[in-house]
Amino acid sequence: TVAKAKKKTGVARLWMRFNRSGQSELAELDKNAIIKLAAIPARDLRILGPLFSHSSNILAREKAMVVNLEFIKAIVTAEEVLILDPLCQEVLPFVEQLRQQLPQKTQPRPHGHVDEQENELLVSTGRQWLPVPESADGLQAELPFEFQVLEIALEVVCTYLDSSVADLERGAYPVLDELARNVSTKNLEHVRSLKSNLTRLLARVQKVRDEIEHLLDDNQDMAQLYLTRKWLQNQQSEALLAATASNILTTVAPVPQLSSNRSVSLANSNAEDDSDVEDLEMLLEAYFMQLDGTRNKILSVREYIDDTEDYVNIQLDSHRNELIQLQLTLTIASFAVAVETLIAGAFGMNIPCTLYNTEGVFWPFVGGTTAVCILLFFFIYGYARWKKLLGS
Amino acid sequence: TVAKAKKKTGVARLWMRFNRSGQSELAELDKNAIIKLAAIPARDLRILGPLFSHSSNILAREKAMVVNLEFIKAIVTAEEVLILDPLCQEVLPFVEQLRQQLPQKTQPRPHGHVDEQENELLVSTGRQWLPVPESADGLQAELPFEFQVLEIALEVVCTYLDSSVADLERGAYPVLDELARNVSTKNLEHVRSLKSNLTRLLARVQKVRDEIEHLLDDNQDMAQLYLTRKWLQNQQSEALLAATASNILTTVAPVPQLSSNRSVSLANSNAEDDSDVEDLEMLLEAYFMQLDGTRNKILSVREYIDDTEDYVNIQLDSHRNELIQLQLTLTIASFAVAVETLIAGAFGMNIPCTLYNTEGVFWPFVGGTTAVCILLFFFIYGYARWKKLLGS
Amino acid sequence: TVAKAKKKTGVARLWMRFNRSGQSELAELDKNAIIKLAAIPARDLRILGPLFSHSSNILAREKAMVVNLEFIKAIVTAEEVLILDPLCQEVLPFVEQLRQQLPQKTQPRPHGHVDEQENELLVSTGRQWLPVPESADGLQAELPFEFQVLEIALEVVCTYLDSSVADLERGAYPVLDELARNVSTKNLEHVRSLKSNLTRLLARVQKVRDEIEHLLDDNQDMAQLYLTRKWLQNQQSEALLAATASNILTTVAPVPQLSSNRSVSLANSNAEDDSDVEDLEMLLEAYFMQLDGTRNKILSVREYIDDTEDYVNIQLDSHRNELIQLQLTLTIASFAVAVETLIAGAFGMNIPCTLYNTEGVFWPFVGGTTAVCILLFFFIYGYARWKKLLGS
Amino acid sequence: TVAKAKKKTGVARLWMRFNRSGQSELAELDKNAIIKLAAIPARDLRILGPLFSHSSNILAREKAMVVNLEFIKAIVTAEEVLILDPLCQEVLPFVEQLRQQLPQKTQPRPHGHVDEQENELLVSTGRQWLPVPESADGLQAELPFEFQVLEIALEVVCTYLDSSVADLERGAYPVLDELARNVSTKNLEHVRSLKSNLTRLLARVQKVRDEIEHLLDDNQDMAQLYLTRKWLQNQQSEALLAATASNILTTVAPVPQLSSNRSVSLANSNAEDDSDVEDLEMLLEAYFMQLDGTRNKILSVREYIDDTEDYVNIQLDSHRNELIQLQLTLTIASFAVAVETLIAGAFGMNIPCTLYNTEGVFWPFVGGTTAVCILLFFFIYGYARWKKLLGS
Amino acid sequence: TVAKAKKKTGVARLWMRFNRSGQSELAELDKNAIIKLAAIPARDLRILGPLFSHSSNILAREKAMVVNLEFIKAIVTAEEVLILDPLCQEVLPFVEQLRQQLPQKTQPRPHGHVDEQENELLVSTGRQWLPVPESADGLQAELPFEFQVLEIALEVVCTYLDSSVADLERGAYPVLDELARNVSTKNLEHVRSLKSNLTRLLARVQKVRDEIEHLLDDNQDMAQLYLTRKWLQNQQSEALLAATASNILTTVAPVPQLSSNRSVSLANSNAEDDSDVEDLEMLLEAYFMQLDGTRNKILSVREYIDDTEDYVNIQLDSHRNELIQLQLTLTIASFAVAVETLIAGAFGMNIPCTLYNTEGVFWPFVGGTTAVCILLFFFIYGYARWKKLLGS
Repeated sequence: TVAKAKKKTGVARLWMRFNRSGQSELAELDKNAIIKLAAIPARDLRILGPLFSHSSNILAREKAMVVNLEFIKAIVTAEEVLILDPLCQEVLPFVEQLRQQLPQKTQPRPHGHVDEQENELLVSTGRQWLPVPESADGLQAELPFEFQVLEIALEVVCTYLDSSVADLERGAYPVLDELARNVSTKNLEHVRSLKSNLTRLLARVQKVRDEIEHLLDDNQDMAQLYLTRKWLQNQQSEALLAATASNILTTVAPVPQLSSNRSVSLANSNAEDDSDVEDLEMLLEAYFMQLDGTRNKILSVREYIDDTEDYVNIQLDSHRNELIQLQLTLTIASFAVAVETLIAGAFGMNIPCTLYNTEGVFWPFVGGTTAVCILLFFFIYGYARWKKLLGS
Repeated sequence: TVAKAKKKTGVARLWMRFNRSGQSELAELDKNAIIKLAAIPARDLRILGPLFSHSSNILAREKAMVVNLEFIKAIVTAEEVLILDPLCQEVLPFVEQLRQQLPQKTQPRPHGHVDEQENELLVSTGRQWLPVPESADGLQAELPFEFQVLEIALEVVCTYLDSSVADLERGAYPVLDELARNVSTKNLEHVRSLKSNLTRLLARVQKVRDEIEHLLDDNQDMAQLYLTRKWLQNQQSEALLAATASNILTTVAPVPQLSSNRSVSLANSNAEDDSDVEDLEMLLEAYFMQLDGTRNKILSVREYIDDTEDYVNIQLDSHRNELIQLQLTLTIASFAVAVETLIAGAFGMNIPCTLYNTEGVFWPFVGGTTAVCILLFFFIYGYARWKKLLGS
Repeated sequence: TVAKAKKKTGVARLWMRFNRSGQSELAELDKNAIIKLAAIPARDLRILGPLFSHSSNILAREKAMVVNLEFIKAIVTAEEVLILDPLCQEVLPFVEQLRQQLPQKTQPRPHGHVDEQENELLVSTGRQWLPVPESADGLQAELPFEFQVLEIALEVVCTYLDSSVADLERGAYPVLDELARNVSTKNLEHVRSLKSNLTRLLARVQKVRDEIEHLLDDNQDMAQLYLTRKWLQNQQSEALLAATASNILTTVAPVPQLSSNRSVSLANSNAEDDSDVEDLEMLLEAYFMQLDGTRNKILSVREYIDDTEDYVNIQLDSHRNELIQLQLTLTIASFAVAVETLIAGAFGMNIPCTLYNTEGVFWPFVGGTTAVCILLFFFIYGYARWKKLLGS
Repeated sequence: TVAKAKKKTGVARLWMRFNRSGQSELAELDKNAIIKLAAIPARDLRILGPLFSHSSNILAREKAMVVNLEFIKAIVTAEEVLILDPLCQEVLPFVEQLRQQLPQKTQPRPHGHVDEQENELLVSTGRQWLPVPESADGLQAELPFEFQVLEIALEVVCTYLDSSVADLERGAYPVLDELARNVSTKNLEHVRSLKSNLTRLLARVQKVRDEIEHLLDDNQDMAQLYLTRKWLQNQQSEALLAATASNILTTVAPVPQLSSNRSVSLANSNAEDDSDVEDLEMLLEAYFMQLDGTRNKILSVREYIDDTEDYVNIQLDSHRNELIQLQLTLTIASFAVAVETLIAGAFGMNIPCTLYNTEGVFWPFVGGTTAVCILLFFFIYGYARWKKLLGS
Repeated sequence: TVAKAKKKTGVARLWMRFNRSGQSELAELDKNAIIKLAAIPARDLRILGPLFSHSSNILAREKAMVVNLEFIKAIVTAEEVLILDPLCQEVLPFVEQLRQQLPQKTQPRPHGHVDEQENELLVSTGRQWLPVPESADGLQAELPFEFQVLEIALEVVCTYLDSSVADLERGAYPVLDELARNVSTKNLEHVRSLKSNLTRLLARVQKVRDEIEHLLDDNQDMAQLYLTRKWLQNQQSEALLAATASNILTTVAPVPQLSSNRSVSLANSNAEDDSDVEDLEMLLEAYFMQLDGTRNKILSVREYIDDTEDYVNIQLDSHRNELIQLQLTLTIASFAVAVETLIAGAFGMNIPCTLYNTEGVFWPFVGGTTAVCILLFFFIYGYARWKKLLGS
């Protein structure tokens, strides 16, 4: 019934909402509903549309991250994931993985922090600084929700791409060696379709890889992806502003403002910006390396194709030269035969000649002309060898 | 009559002025009038001229942005757009879109801010900081005028380029498959014109894409494009300077200068520079991705052409080798026939020979020589096969 | 007489001195005189020498800018231009332009500033900040002398390069289409010389373009080119130092030093470094775009040449295959004829045969063998078609 | 028995633990044990797995560095190295080098510092600053443990790659010169396998080189690799925090916090970050240069292969043309012979002709037709030469 | 005797020590002696070894700069140069230049500074600032010792490379034009060896150029090369530290430390880091431009080779087609002749035919069949022309 309903409205599409506690529901949402849920401009929704069907992009927005990785098209907020077309064949493993891995990992971290920070600003900066290495010891079990989703998406996509490449690679080498042995139209067609498959796959792997590299190059973009953290900071700064506003009357104006500003920025930029972008960097780095490996595999297949084509080209040229060499040898022999045929033909003329009446000349004559023609053959053949045209 | 008038003066060209409240008028303006209206140096007007007809550039100037995107040539200020040749066939959709989308969106934002900021500098920095995320919730409805125009221009140009590429792509694959099947001069001509069309289109898409990438790479250039904001800041800083100047006598000199400087810079750089360049970045990023997708499409067609040409080259070479192989086989057979013809010719000579008088030798003789020649054929043919020149 | 004198000394070369008020004089100067005039190291003079005759460089030095743009070789200081070989055919337009444009534009700006700044440092930073946008309204009429010269040089060089490219482009397309139609040695020679001309021109355009891009990428280098400003700053800082030195006894040591340092740096870096590099950036950007367009034109011609060569290569190969196909058809026919000739030859032998005495067999016999040979032809021809070697 | 046990569990793999005092032990560790020992996320262990078997990566983590250089797969902490598959043939030299070089070099540096720093923070920053150049005089004998291991790993890998390239290079030139002399299928096969070996080796060298370049480009990543230093800093900052916490009650709050913060950052960033990344930079630079040289060798072999292939291609084409030229000459001669044969054949017809009864015409007739045919040959041959098709 | 002694030890190599006052001595030094003299790690000495014989590197170390420019292998400290293999043929010009240019230029600058700076720190920063532009007026006569050596080395190497390229270039164009005229194995061999020479030379020029570019890109590396300055700074900071240490008891701790730190950094970074890296930048820039020009020359020769090869390829193909066209024409003619020969052969058969007894048919018959065959020739020839296979 869901699939039917989808066809009726036309605009609304099937989404799966999957929140941080592991609960999921299917829902048909139209564009406006999504825009409201994720707080993103309509413009950004286009990258999940058909125009970008073979592209990969990760967009960081104020309160959401728009993920378009190959077949996985999702919008991740600090609270939930919205997955487009969740019943599609290729997306199912992603949903499966989300179901398996998400609920057990996510801890209710966000709330503890906000409470502590309200009144004891100066001390909290110290405290906040310390837990980070500690939590690093705990081995990133507490990655924020949005990155857990991102990791699962990357995992599914990388595995998919890698297995596609492995399939292609397995088929490629036999086809190429076959082509090197025997250049037939059938083999050429195989290689041609192999090449266009490789090109298409390379473009896809490259797109995902470039997107990750682009993120890794820009710390600001990575910081933008910390949706949970940004949400916490927003709440902090609101609380802080309220506190500052009430203090502003009792203290000298400029000093507290500066110090509070600074403490906020210390809390934000030093403690978290530095150490935490690390988390995301580590995550992206690992998948970047995997994609880079996948890409290198494709490139080495391409290189092998190019080498094979060079080989085939020279091989064909060299083969042709050998064909022509044999042909040339036969042409020389044919020429010698033609010359003797001419002589025989001349003496076949009915125009009277003294030889026609001489007995016993036949065999010596035939023998003599044959010898002359064989000499002619060897003379021309020798000339060709001397010119390095034949033999070698 | 407008078109006529244009031809008379020669220097003056037809422009459409389109202001932020949605009113438009056609006007013939010469170079100097434009320079005065937009406050740009004469040098910059050249990029709208014929020299740059197939180029794309976006220039940020003090009070205006010079937009040359493919066929759209316009100068955008904080107040109005000046569109060159608005009656041109390709520019019409742009004007149409401007008419539809502009008036309803633009809000009279500029004035509210200036008033607030006059006396309560310190507080306003706080207030100003907060509205930004709020406005982000409102989904960028209040993009400044200059960016609304830029977005419409990019939309029109991207759509145009994308549909051109789609047209070309649709035609390309059949032509290439036809070439792969049959290399004829006609098909080669088709592919050649296809290639030069692709090259030209790629150059255009690349130009627009590079221009956007260039802007995205340079935050300062992007900040320069905030014409409305710069106009507001100018007014603020004038007001502030006036205020500072009057204070300078009553307070200690160095301190207020520093603080005022800082507060200005806070107001400028922190509150607006950061969050707002974001707006433009988001806008440009979306169109950059679309253009990148368009470019990838062209590149994949080019790749397909290259693969097809490689295929055709090897195919032609391989075909030729097969032709020569058949020719060689025939040459061998011809040689055998020529040898037997020679023998027959020899016995056709009128020189007396004992055989001429022997009855019943004819058929055995013909049979014998034929058998020898057939053996000769198979001997040479076998040699060629043994040398891997034939067969395979 | 000037040209004569030049030959005598050998070392001294002809220079034209052209100062900011528009007065010019020809002078023979040797290396040392130039070094003294422009205060540049001897090393830098080399880039105006023959080694760099086809190169383009712009060097920023302490008090001078060494300009080597194609044929224009000049040294620009804040006071005057020194032009090398001003009587050379290609340099004349540059001198002409300098004469026309320089005197009327240059205003005696430098002096006004220095006076103001002497005693009222704090206020002047404010005042100085404001004039800049104002002067921007005045449309850059007051570009400093060195940039006016640079702009004229770029204008002359860009126009020259652009017209060279346009000439080449106009000739290129007919030549290439002619080659596509008919591959003759003459056409190939044309294309080959066209290619090497293009390559040479591309290298020159690219060199100028890269030099400008290099400058645009490095704000510090651009700041170095503000010779007039640097000269003013030097004077200011000397005055300031004198003032500071006299104050040093009356005030606490560290504080005034810091503040004075800061005010200088504010005056220098904030007010001027930012806004003014803009001037140069705008100037260079405009010419960069023009050169980029010129370069794109050359690249698109090169692309067209490459496409044409690909076309010609496949065309030649395809043509050859067709030639060989016809030859093969003839070879098959010849073979059939040779077989029949053999049969006829056999019956032309003088060895007695019963047929020789049978009347009325001649025509049936000839008809029969002919029919057999025609069948033979069609059999082999059909085999070739079945193998896809012929026909299609 | 170790090898046996490994096969039983399947998950556990053989590792060698090698600590900073030079003691080593073999141990079978499963994934979790490793994760606990090195404090790295499970994700990072994958780069030591089979997926990355032909890749090279160096990952900097909180307390460990994951080294995957070709066949060397190890995890380095400040205390010990964990080497995967230490009994593997290629890894043995690495273990050998570790055994030889490690114990004698390592000094128990870490402990001295921590003691000093506890109470005399301000002075220690001064002291700490000085030892660095002094230790530089001591010629880096005291590189921290992790870099000694890294250097040995790089040394072993670079030597291995360099000798592989040298082997390949030694074999390459004879094979290529042989191909240039004689294009046979055997030689082509040699070159083809040479090319794919080169490509594979280039990819490996490039991977290591890029990894090092990547590290060198990013000072932050390099700083991350200072495991020993990070361990010391952690201990310092803990001590410092404790001290600050106890002071916080006795002094004014903001001031000491700032000053202590600053002194820490001075100690960290100035004294150590700057000078010490230098150590690692120098180490990596040296190996980068070696790998760059290795890569250049491969590239120059590749270039030589490409040049040889170009040579062979033109050579084959030119050879073919010469073959066809000789064939053409023979075709012309054959044609002349065929014409004379035709004439002879015509006069061999049994149709009565007046010549058949004329005595003494035979020799003049034969001589005449032969002369005509020789003239015919020279006429056509001359035409071909005049057309520049033959001779030259 | 020096050369003999060198062979005996094997490890020790011949070095020339050349100090800043122009005195030189030959000495056999082994690795350890060099390491001690130059205070560099053993690792860095490798780049002067055989592994890097065709590479170019400039390494900045604490107290020395290791220079490996083509054949010049030297270690430069603030005091002296150590030149490896100074008697080698190619190194002699370098030693010669050192002898001529060094003594007269070097001024005993180092000592003056140190004295001044001891007690009057605050004032000296002002004084130090001014001399720099003054010394720039003096035209860099006082480049520090290490840069004088570097400049001479670059001069020698650039001149050597440039003249090598000029030699190659002079020989290249005639060889290529000869190849374009006549593709013979000899000419191909010439071009092939020319190409590999070019490639090798390009790699060398590129290596030096890249090394200089690399230095120019990294201000920190350039600052590292100021050996004399670093030596002076070390002495200053030691003096300063001693002063600070004695003050530490009499003043409040944090304040003096900060101010003294700052004044040092002001002295170092502002006054010298900025203006002086300029000196080195100017020096390197000039040689970078020269090498870039040399590289462009090589690249344009390569481009010419590529164009010539393209030309030769198409030329050979086109020539072959013309050969085959003539061959085809002859094949058509031969076919026509063969057909007539067949007819003649048929009537040469001894099988009785009524024509054999008809008088006066001979000439009409021969004329008739000849006419038919000529028609046959023109028919087939016309078909080939109609198919665009012949003629044109």
